[in-house]
Formats: sequence, C-alpha cells, structure tokens
Amino acid sequence: MTPSLAEIFLSEVLGTATLTLLGCGVVANALLAKTKGFAGGPLFINFGWGLAVFAGVYVAYASGAHLNPAVTVGLLVSGNDYAPGVSPDLVNTLVYFAAEMVGGALGAVVVYLAYKKHFDATEDGALKLAVFSTGPEIRRYGWNVVTEVIGTFVLVFVILLFGNTPAQIGPLAVALLVVGIGASLGGPTGYAINPARDLGPRIAHALLPIRGKGSSDWAYAWVPVVGPVLGGILAGLVYYAMPVIPA
Amino acid sequence: MTPSLAEIFLSEVLGTATLTLLGCGVVANALLAKTKGFAGGPLFINFGWGLAVFAGVYVAYASGAHLNPAVTVGLLVSGNDYAPGVSPDLVNTLVYFAAEMVGGALGAVVVYLAYKKHFDATEDGALKLAVFSTGPEIRRYGWNVVTEVIGTFVLVFVILLFGNTPAQIGPLAVALLVVGIGASLGGPTGYAINPARDLGPRIAHALLPIRGKGSSDWAYAWVPVVGPVLGGILAGLVYYAMPVIPA
Amino acid sequence: MTPSLAEIFLSEVLGTATLTLLGCGVVANALLAKTKGFAGGPLFINFGWGLAVFAGVYVAYASGAHLNPAVTVGLLVSGNDYAPGVSPDLVNTLVYFAAEMVGGALGAVVVYLAYKKHFDATEDGALKLAVFSTGPEIRRYGWNVVTEVIGTFVLVFVILLFGNTPAQIGPLAVALLVVGIGASLGGPTGYAINPARDLGPRIAHALLPIRGKGSSDWAYAWVPVVGPVLGGILAGLVYYAMPVIPA
Amino acid sequence: MTPSLAEIFLSEVLGTATLTLLGCGVVANALLAKTKGFAGGPLFINFGWGLAVFAGVYVAYASGAHLNPAVTVGLLVSGNDYAPGVSPDLVNTLVYFAAEMVGGALGAVVVYLAYKKHFDATEDGALKLAVFSTGPEIRRYGWNVVTEVIGTFVLVFVILLFGNTPAQIGPLAVALLVVGIGASLGGPTGYAINPARDLGPRIAHALLPIRGKGSSDWAYAWVPVVGPVLGGILAGLVYYAMPVIPA
Repeated sequence: MTPSLAEIFLSEVLGTATLTLLGCGVVANALLAKTKGFAGGPLFINFGWGLAVFAGVYVAYASGAHLNPAVTVGLLVSGNDYAPGVSPDLVNTLVYFAAEMVGGALGAVVVYLAYKKHFDATEDGALKLAVFSTGPEIRRYGWNVVTEVIGTFVLVFVILLFGNTPAQIGPLAVALLVVGIGASLGGPTGYAINPARDLGPRIAHALLPIRGKGSSDWAYAWVPVVGPVLGGILAGLVYYAMPVIPA
Repeated sequence: MTPSLAEIFLSEVLGTATLTLLGCGVVANALLAKTKGFAGGPLFINFGWGLAVFAGVYVAYASGAHLNPAVTVGLLVSGNDYAPGVSPDLVNTLVYFAAEMVGGALGAVVVYLAYKKHFDATEDGALKLAVFSTGPEIRRYGWNVVTEVIGTFVLVFVILLFGNTPAQIGPLAVALLVVGIGASLGGPTGYAINPARDLGPRIAHALLPIRGKGSSDWAYAWVPVVGPVLGGILAGLVYYAMPVIPA
Repeated sequence: MTPSLAEIFLSEVLGTATLTLLGCGVVANALLAKTKGFAGGPLFINFGWGLAVFAGVYVAYASGAHLNPAVTVGLLVSGNDYAPGVSPDLVNTLVYFAAEMVGGALGAVVVYLAYKKHFDATEDGALKLAVFSTGPEIRRYGWNVVTEVIGTFVLVFVILLFGNTPAQIGPLAVALLVVGIGASLGGPTGYAINPARDLGPRIAHALLPIRGKGSSDWAYAWVPVVGPVLGGILAGLVYYAMPVIPA
Repeated sequence: MTPSLAEIFLSEVLGTATLTLLGCGVVANALLAKTKGFAGGPLFINFGWGLAVFAGVYVAYASGAHLNPAVTVGLLVSGNDYAPGVSPDLVNTLVYFAAEMVGGALGAVVVYLAYKKHFDATEDGALKLAVFSTGPEIRRYGWNVVTEVIGTFVLVFVILLFGNTPAQIGPLAVALLVVGIGASLGGPTGYAINPARDLGPRIAHALLPIRGKGSSDWAYAWVPVVGPVLGGILAGLVYYAMPVIPA
C-alpha cells in the first residue's frame, strides 16, 4: 500500500526526530557536565549515531526511511523510487525535505528536555552547540566541504548498492555503515553527512532558551548542507553510470 | 502452542533474571573493586546491558520476552497480543508484571553471588547500590522522570514497530536498540527504562546481607517505575494513532 | 551427510584452535609489551573473545561447533544430538573432549608464534600466563567456582535455547552471547566458561619454551574445569525440566 | 549475468578503494593531530577497518568482492570460482590483482584529501606513513612474516568456509571477522593481511605531495605482501585438503 503525502510526512518527521534524538543525545552524554557517559570517546559516539540511524529506520520504514536530504537527492539522481510506489517527483521531494528538516529539529528539542539539567550544569557554550550541530576541528571551509562530500558519497553510494546484495540484516546495515563512516571520515568535521541532522538542530539551538548558550555558528552552517547535497548527487551519478552492479 | 499461565510465569521469570544477571553484572564489573572490567567505560556498560537483553529474549522467547512492565503496558495500550495466543487481559497482565519483578530481583541475587568477594572488597556503599539500581547524576525528580519517559518511549515505540519491517536479525534488534538508548539517553539517570530492572534489584539490595551496604535510596525508587510506565503508555498511544505504519 | 569420527575430531580441533588463537591472541595484544593493542581495555578483550568464537564456529560447523566440553556436556544432559546425525554416546563424547582439548592447546601455540617477540619483550611472567589461561582477581576457590558455574550456565542454557527461536544470524548469536558474558560475568575470574579454553592453553604454557615464564598456576587449574562442567550440567538439567520453551 | 573483465576491474577498484578509504581513514582519525577521533584506541581502529571491509563488500559485490590478492590467491588454490561465472584463470587473476592494487592506492589518495589539513597539522612523519601502510612494533622481518601469515590464514580460511554455513548476515560476517583478526592478531604488525591494502597506499604515500612526510619504509614493504600471499595459499591448501567441511 502506497503511503499518502501526509503519511510520508509523518513517517519521515518521526524517523528523523528519532535519528537526532539518539544522535544528538549521545553527544550530550559524552560532552555535557555530570553525565554517566562523560568522555565516552569516539567509538561511543560513533555507535550512538549508528544506532540512532538504526532506530530511525524502523520508525520511518513505511516511507523508505530517507531521514536525510542527501539520501533523497541521491535516489532522485539515481532514478530510484523514494519508497515502493512513491515516485521521485517534485512534490514528493519537497515533502521529504520538509519532513526531514522538521524531524531533525524536533529530535534536538527532545534531547534538550532529556538533558535539561546537564545543559544548565555545563559552562562552555561551544559544548552545548556541539550537542546540536557539527563544527570542524580545523576551520577551512573548502576542505571541510571536501570532507563532507566524501563522507556523504560513501553513505549514499553504499545505500544505493544495498539493493543489489541479498543481505538479510535490514536496518542494521545502514547503522553499521554510519558507525564506519563516523570512525573513518568523521575526524575533521564530525560527519554531518546529512543537512537535516545539522541544520534542523542548529535552528533548534537558535530558538531554544538554553541557559548560557553561545553562538549558533551560522557562518559554518552552509558547509554541512552543501557538502552532503553534493556528495549525494555524486553518489547518484556514479551509481547511475556504473554498468557492473546489476550483474 | 499457546503457553499456559505457569509457562508464561516461568519464562518471564527466567528471561528477566537473565536480563538483570547480565545487566547488573556489567555494572558490577565496571564499578566494584579489583574486577577485570574496572572502569570499563560507558560503551562497555551499554553493550553489557544490550547483550543482557539479547540473552534474556532468547530465554523468554516462548512468552514474547517482555522482560519489562513498560513493554507489557505498551502492548496493552497498542492493542497487540502479549505473545501468539496470549491476549492482553487483566490476569495475563498481572502474571507478566509479577514474573518480571520476581525475575528482576532473582537475577540481581545471582549477580551478588557471582561478585561476592568484590562486594566485600568495595568500600563505597553507593557503588554497591549502583550495581543493583539506577540513580540520577543530578537529582531533580521531575526532570529525571522526563528523561525516563523519553528513553522508554523510544524503547517501546521502536519495539512495536519491529513487526512492520522484514528484519531478519531477531533478538539482536532489541539488543542494539538498548545499546543505543543507553548511549544516547542514559546520561542523566542511567536508563532504567524498565520498572522490573530497577525495583526488582532494589528489593534484592534491601534484603541481601551485603557487607557495608548503604541506603537502598527508596526516595528515588518511584522515578524508574513511573517514568517507564508513562513512556510505555505514550508509545502505545502514538503507535495506535499512527496511520502510516501498516502501509 | 553425517561426519565420521575422524571428521568430527579434525573439525573440533581446528575450530577450538581458531577459538584460542583469536581468544588468547586478544589478551596477548592487550597485555604484552609493545603491542598495538596495549591496554585496549575490557570491551576490546570481550569483543576479541566473542569474535574468536564467531570464527571458530564457522570452522567447526560440520561437527556442530561445540568448541567447549561444557557445551558437549550440556547437550548430553539435555538429550540433544551433538550434530545432525551424531548421537550423544560415550565414544562421540570422548572424541569431542579430546579434540577440544587438543585444539585449545594448539591455538595457544600459534598465538605464541604470532606474538613471539612480544613474549620476549615482556618482563612479567604473570602477564605471559594470563595470555594462555585465566586466573582470579581475588583467589577464593569456592567463590571462583561459583562465578564460573554461573557464567557457563548462561552460555550453555542460552545456546540450548537458540533452537527455539527463528533467529537468522547464525554464529553471530554465540559470538555476541560470549561478548555479553565476558562483559557481565568476567570480572572476578576472567570467564574461562570452557575447560578446553583454559586447560589446553595451560598445558601449552607448561610445555612451550617461553622466555622468563613463571608458574603455570596448577593450583588454580581445576577451577576453570570443574566450574564450567558443573555449569554445563546445570544448564542441561534446567533446559530438560522446562516445559515452557517448546511452546 | 557474468561480469565482463571491465566490470570486474571497475567493481574491484571501487570496492578496494572503499576499503582503504575507510580503513586508512580510521587510522588518520586516531593518529593525526586535532581530529575528533584522536587516541580512539585499538577497538576503535579495529571496528573502523572491519566496517571498511563491510562497505567495500557491498560496493564490489558483483565481482565477488575479493578486495585482497590474498583472497584471490586463496580462491585460486582452493579451486573455487572468483565469482559466479568467473573462473580462476590467469587473465582473470591478473585483472583482480591489478584492480585491487589500483583501488588500494586510490582510496588512500581520497583519505589524504579528506584529512588534508590534519596531515598538514601533524609533525611526525611516521604517523603520516602509519595512516597509509602498516609497520611492525618490533622489527624482525622473519617473525613479522609469521604474524602476517597467521592472520591472513585465518581471514582466508574462514572466508572459504562461509559457504558451508547457512549464515544470513552477508557482508557483516567478513566485517566481524576482520574486527576479530585485528583485535587478536594485529598487535605485532598492524594486520595488513592484504597486499593491496598495504602496497597500494604505500605507493600513494610515495607519490603524494604530503607536507613533511618521511620515508615510505620500502625496507618493510615486502613483508605485508609476502606474508599475506603465503597465508592465503596455506588457507586454500588446508581448505582443499579438508574432507570434513562439506559434510
């Protein structure tokens, strides 16, 4: 049964909210003051994000579980349907984009509620922003875009290839892929690899009455949008051009 | 073949005992003196709890492996059966609740036996309680309830949605979900997300002749009961209201 | 096709050798001097042992991949076949026992070769023994046996219950179970939970010309034999008595 | 549909490039200056490499996803086809070898781009080389070869045995096997266990204009080629000689 536009919207909102709830949540656990996961380390954060995708895919299964405009764009360019019966037309594309962005912001708001007293107990405003959105370790916008393009390319390219393999592990495959991309390509910029995961929470950060919050770093905000979109397009193109995969 | 009430009881007792045996066990390994897992870190504890659920689900498979009153409540509210042929009526509900609580306490008693000499070697009574039951890093009952509601909502909501996905990884899916919730939402309160996992062991703590044990912290004991029950109800309601999932 | 006695023997020798090669190997990596995994921590060691089982199960698949006399004993007591077409009679039992022990020793010899220069570079003889065999953090034989009984009970009991669940993850299930038992119940004694994993390598330790090796700690050697055998018997009995599982 | 030679080449190039992109990437994240994964530890690196294989297998699925000349050699010796319809003849073998080496180098070039500013910010030339290629902790060529033979034997032997098991986890099995080999046998030499993973990136290191790079350590370069090839041959021979496995 093909989902309606409203069903797609609700599904992607809740799935993407689950993604940023658990994803931004693990960063809160690792960075904010007085948490049980304080200084949990990079593998801890990578597994948190990977399993955030895992849960989000179950939630948004009915709509194909894009959870990410770069995935939507990659499917569009590659010529695949968005979900069984959902064609990649303009209206559907805009519904996915809107839902992903709303869900991304919504999940971050719930993280704020779950960690309310720990936000209050943390001094450093930069740590609070890091719970919501990514930032580079070395700020060089051009290279930061390159890193995000590469990471997102791997994400979308491998997702597009899942369908050619008789894998039986369902949402776990995307989850582990995200763990791997985080461990391997997350070093410079924190692997946004998803505009909705970064811009949605950044908007939430700007709007929420977080005690002692600093800047939302809007100067960087375009990087984790442009990089992932370019990476998704590139993945769709390479996938489309490859004769070998359907063999 | 539908399990009898006695079979449901035995199944959930042993399954929940396996859950708290391995779950409280990993905390003992990480916190008590002179263990090989001392200071193993948050990811270590998260995997221990996740794999505790993994083992518990195999043990209680015949009864649907609730292992958690919040799951039972979520199934009740959502209108699902408790297991194939087991309807969500009052008697069944009470049998699940009783079995989960007895099992939760029983597993904690076995942890005490497995780590007997390490309980003796540990000075700090608060660490001994932490093996049995959760406690907040920042004690604000209202916010602590909020955190437990959110974590349990994710647990029960995603479990309810498992059935809509052709996933083939069985008990591993719940295990990984619990690893993820622990990493992402366990920071403030230690993710009880299960009244039987918290209250059962707390009763065991109160009754066992643990050398140099301190308070069982009964002032906090209602939080990991009320929060998870509310979270489970909320998950059942949202699941019930969602038109998009059966698509 | 039912494997012959010789095929069972070869299969279990190679499977158990794979188990101790990778299992003792991760301990070598974490404990010996100048390794890349030095001080890798408990989760690192737990995953190493879990994935050692994973690989060993693939290698010994044709003979049922016991790899562990406690598993063989548990199957015997529970009334299950050892493998398709392999009945639990005396001769078969002895062949499994012999193969597991030989394989356990053989894998440890290969670890010695893989880490030869790191054994030479390590001063502490106790660390060298720890690569081969388990030892308790607090030496109280009675309680150490209790801990090994509990850990092995969980291992064998859950393995016996795998067959009742339509799980589709094959050898990964046992691997994750071992990761979980290690994290949760490995704290006091290092979770031998397998006589062949402990006694086989201990014999290898006694025989190999390891530079500056200390005692093989024969005083403790009976604990990780007796405890696991008792745990396996107990698991077989509880499994046999349980009416609820075949439902 | 049998892939053509060009399709095999493209498939293995992209798959092996994905392998070294994510594999060398996790080392960059753990070793280079100012990264988010700095000092992530051995399990972090092991999971990074394991999930690099995971992604690479999806990418190269159409050609059997060798990604490794030692796997190609092991299949050749064992008498298996390289992929459905692709026989182990000389031309095919050379195409696999060439593609693996080109892909190995290509992935390392992309790592350099993703971490460009972090290579610039790192002082120590040895750390930069370590991102690309393996090196021993104790330099004794003979023993280093032994370690690489053992690790590669386990890799190829278990891969050859995958086919005898009704496992349903697809590329995850190889990924976890590599995590395990890394944790258990990676201590002395850093587990190249793949000539293309080591020599390809070493060539890239020699050619790339990396700021302040040191030697490419050509004196060691033969070890991670010869050891893995010998290990792959040995695995193919033992597999071929074993009567028990097809049971």
